[in-house]
Amino acid sequence: MKEAVVLLSGGMDSAVALAQMVANHGSENVMAVSFDYGSKHNDREYRAAEHISSFYDVLHRRINLDMVKELFVSDLLKSSNGAIPEGHYTDASMKSTVVPFRNGIMLSIAAGLAESYEASRVVIANHAGDHAIYPDCRPAFTHDMGQAIYHGTDGKVSLISPFFMMTKTDICRLGAQLQVPLVYTYSCYNGRELHCGKCGTCFERKEAFRDSGVTDYTEYEA
Amino acid sequence: MKEAVVLLSGGMDSAVALAQMVANHGSENVMAVSFDYGSKHNDREYRAAEHISSFYDVLHRRINLDMVKELFVSDLLKSSNGAIPEGHYTDASMKSTVVPFRNGIMLSIAAGLAESYEASRVVIANHAGDHAIYPDCRPAFTHDMGQAIYHGTDGKVSLISPFFMMTKTDICRLGAQLQVPLVYTYSCYNGRELHCGKCGTCFERKEAFRDSGVTDYTEYEA
Repeated sequence: MKEAVVLLSGGMDSAVALAQMVANHGSENVMAVSFDYGSKHNDREYRAAEHISSFYDVLHRRINLDMVKELFVSDLLKSSNGAIPEGHYTDASMKSTVVPFRNGIMLSIAAGLAESYEASRVVIANHAGDHAIYPDCRPAFTHDMGQAIYHGTDGKVSLISPFFMMTKTDICRLGAQLQVPLVYTYSCYNGRELHCGKCGTCFERKEAFRDSGVTDYTEYEA
Repeated sequence: MKEAVVLLSGGMDSAVALAQMVANHGSENVMAVSFDYGSKHNDREYRAAEHISSFYDVLHRRINLDMVKELFVSDLLKSSNGAIPEGHYTDASMKSTVVPFRNGIMLSIAAGLAESYEASRVVIANHAGDHAIYPDCRPAFTHDMGQAIYHGTDGKVSLISPFFMMTKTDICRLGAQLQVPLVYTYSCYNGRELHCGKCGTCFERKEAFRDSGVTDYTEYEA
């Protein structure tokens, strides 16, 4: 039995969401779940997720989404020849990195898992800055999906989106307050050992550290 | 490119939904998708789904949900020792056969698949008689999930639930009108070669044939 299932990508946002749930409910009552959908950075970010869940001593499961790898179309996937665009995360060029209905799939599985573990909450760390490019991060989607989860589990599971009104800068500051080991987190879409420092998610990460005044210990390639 | 992705279990309802989409859009524009979530009857009903999709000459994909097999709790699953209850489908005893958020998971994957194939519709054949026991078949869930799919795909994909106000008897009658080979379909939760004739889904199947006046060519064990 658990209180909450947290989607843990290995990035900064979900690490802070996990830390907050652990602070409120205790590590034994929280479960983290990561997904392998065949993205170029999944293996590297999974190592970050493992590092963070060990640090917080929570049960961690990795779920393989073979159907996404085999059948879906997106430049974020290994199966695509399209390169990860450089530049700002909110640029239209980032549209090619949308994985169709990715958050819907991850949340649905997390909801079923929560019901199986008698957990009443599924936590997703989407935030205000995610909305522009990714339709399955926007408030309308999050609201609808929360309703679908609530009704589809007979009221047993609710979806929590604690950061949906916050910026990544706010999340970074909160992470520092909660003493989250942000240096363990991984954001880069290229998936190499070090952050490339040039892709949209690296840009966003650097900005969040700079604007929040939190020291950035990340090692960047460039 | 496709017009619609139809969830095809191999049962009567989804076979009729597929037939209707093929009649309206042509077999080349329709794709059927079946899921293996480790239920006691998945392999047998998959053979039925294969039979039906070959009959209608549509592209058919089977998607493996290992995470449900490995991590979820339900008496419908092979991993459970719980028996399939006998008696009517709407009895409270059938609650043990709920697979947590199953339709949410299947619909989310179908939505991502639809977006990848540029199909504007996902079709699910839930009907009025499903609502009592299964929360993820009820109108509230279907509505919410439809909204989540619509918003989460930026308006590119809609969820269609053509039978949600119909009874299984109505669907059986419609199937006969559309000349669907209903004898190829498979409903039994026990998953043996022949329908057991005693479980909830067999009861419901027999009733639908009887009440609609359509001849039932199904071979039952008992």
